[in-house]
Amino acid sequence: MEKNIIFFDNASTTKLDERVFKSMVDFLQENYGNPSSMHDLGQKASEAIENARNDVANLIDAKEDEIYFTSCATESNNMALWGIARAYKEKGNHIVTSSIEHYSILNPLKEMQKEGWEITILPVDNNGFVDPNDVKKAINKKTVLVSIMHANNEIGTIQKINEISKIVKEAGIIFHSDCVGTAGIIPLNVDELGFDCISFSAQQMYGPKGIAALYLKKGVKIKPLLLGGVQERGRRAGTENVPAIVGFGVASKIAKEEMAANVKKVTNLRDKLFNGIIEKIEKVKLNGHASQRLPGNLHLSFEYIEGESIILLLNNEGIAASSGSSCASHALKSSHVLSAINVPPALANGSILFSLGKFNTQEEVEKVINVLPKIVEKLRKMSPLCN
Amino acid sequence: MEKNIIFFDNASTTKLDERVFKSMVDFLQENYGNPSSMHDLGQKASEAIENARNDVANLIDAKEDEIYFTSCATESNNMALWGIARAYKEKGNHIVTSSIEHYSILNPLKEMQKEGWEITILPVDNNGFVDPNDVKKAINKKTVLVSIMHANNEIGTIQKINEISKIVKEAGIIFHSDCVGTAGIIPLNVDELGFDCISFSAQQMYGPKGIAALYLKKGVKIKPLLLGGVQERGRRAGTENVPAIVGFGVASKIAKEEMAANVKKVTNLRDKLFNGIIEKIEKVKLNGHASQRLPGNLHLSFEYIEGESIILLLNNEGIAASSGSSCASHALKSSHVLSAINVPPALANGSILFSLGKFNTQEEVEKVINVLPKIVEKLRKMSPLCN
Repeated sequence: MEKNIIFFDNASTTKLDERVFKSMVDFLQENYGNPSSMHDLGQKASEAIENARNDVANLIDAKEDEIYFTSCATESNNMALWGIARAYKEKGNHIVTSSIEHYSILNPLKEMQKEGWEITILPVDNNGFVDPNDVKKAINKKTVLVSIMHANNEIGTIQKINEISKIVKEAGIIFHSDCVGTAGIIPLNVDELGFDCISFSAQQMYGPKGIAALYLKKGVKIKPLLLGGVQERGRRAGTENVPAIVGFGVASKIAKEEMAANVKKVTNLRDKLFNGIIEKIEKVKLNGHASQRLPGNLHLSFEYIEGESIILLLNNEGIAASSGSSCASHALKSSHVLSAINVPPALANGSILFSLGKFNTQEEVEKVINVLPKIVEKLRKMSPLCN
Repeated sequence: MEKNIIFFDNASTTKLDERVFKSMVDFLQENYGNPSSMHDLGQKASEAIENARNDVANLIDAKEDEIYFTSCATESNNMALWGIARAYKEKGNHIVTSSIEHYSILNPLKEMQKEGWEITILPVDNNGFVDPNDVKKAINKKTVLVSIMHANNEIGTIQKINEISKIVKEAGIIFHSDCVGTAGIIPLNVDELGFDCISFSAQQMYGPKGIAALYLKKGVKIKPLLLGGVQERGRRAGTENVPAIVGFGVASKIAKEEMAANVKKVTNLRDKLFNGIIEKIEKVKLNGHASQRLPGNLHLSFEYIEGESIILLLNNEGIAASSGSSCASHALKSSHVLSAINVPPALANGSILFSLGKFNTQEEVEKVINVLPKIVEKLRKMSPLCN
């Protein structure tokens, strides 16, 4: 049954590319050695990891020895914040970030604040942009780290990274970015964008769950988060998740090779969906910037109704969409991102995120354009706010 | 070619059980939803995780809500140490451990020492046993945590856990144990053994790499190591590695059901191997206790020769063995465990670990008994130490 699901929730995770799956099978079944072992089975695993590291590095135009594998983007983000801050604590105790970061940035920083770190959380404008001038004003001699995400996972806005990184680098400060939404999806050259450190994961680019990476520019210092064995050149202990690392490598290679075509295809589908929806449904607002946004991202607010109700009725029709942030879905009713871009609470509650990906089709878009107006009409008829 | 490998390195990792692999495939290919998503694909993933949690809890006779999934045993150990210590820091700053712990215990404690924690590292006797009286003497009013491994990963010695836990619990102190070597391998009932918290991983029990667990007894406090979303009831952020969790559940179920038979089979094979070796080779010493040891563990020191050379020559014959600790293999020449049990350095260098598992056979044991004497003879002939 799930084979017929229209999956428009690619921001929360993606379907494994069949080629990635095939690359993993051998390392799940036959080549199961521990990469630290001296024997052939260990060495095969070790070589496979280094091949994958090469492909992952190549995706973002980094060098192999600048890539560290972790278990998820949350771990990469936590490692970057704790690790870089502690490595530079002699210099100062100040960190700059933005109000629309993922919780795996905001929550560790909240904890670090309790331990004496000073955290500046920059506002964003109504499109979700951080003002580079705000970054300039915020940094001082004690600033050791600026962490601003490349593109927002909910509203899709892509930051003016070049302007921000220029300011941060001129001040001699380390620049980290949560690139979960962009790595493998849109072009990302770490040197051109001026990143010193980025976090990204395989599961957002048709790779496996349970594997992510931290890019750390050569020469940037970091303290390890997980201590133990000497894996990942002493910076991330723990037996390597070999099959997932192999899959991450293949996913990175595919992502790089097919990126231009996928950006074009997905943008086109997303625009068709948006045009179809606004043609048929009134009082819909697009959140995030109209053009400086992730190709697959369509974040909409529907007046008078609840986003969750739309999602449940779409689900009945075999369509998977999201309320925006899957990580917060158990805990929070409204999104800190929508609040930061000044979407009024009532409208924020009426929001849903369609996130399209490379496996989506024209027919799927048409089905949603056909089904959604009826759902919205039904819910608005039931709504006490709408008459 | 690797299909014919005789894998006697089960302490460093194990071959995935084919039934475990089969359980994972559907969650790698079709049921790829993010467990936090509201739609059916998300809910199926979420239900699968809770089913697996039930099986993992059942393996150690714990309750489902006492199990937290992590990415590896190293993460579980780090989380236990940092998390429990910080949660109880009002009480004191003292932690007790042993000298033969894995590096994922010893290295975080070394780091914590720099931050003001007092660490007592207890010695072990020549068999690798911690003396329960030493635990009694070491603990004081400021002790917040005792962490002593269930069985040693190199020499296989199984600690007198009941005697130790009785002392720790009478003093009202939290008792953590690294159970990587024992969970899924020998009976492990957390209440009977008196554990408040244990770390264990799937990859040591014919489950997948990249997934492990922390058992935390209800009521014991812990601070999270990874902060972000609300996964794992707010105690471990990051999108769940669904296929690996599903595999861990199945591996746990199989381990519990087939444990008695496997212990018998593996012990029998290990004893046959040991008897065959000492019958044919002189000047071999068994490390660790003769009977209170892990079923598959055979840790031997060969006089006059190097363990690494034995491993390489065995590898040429298609036999995979280990020098003891795979996590340290890149970095260290001699083992801290062998040094702690007073094996002289020269003899320690001549050590290898045969770790047998449920997939090993009588024929494989016979092949090693046949091949090893020739290898040892050859190396001893070349050795300047031996004539």
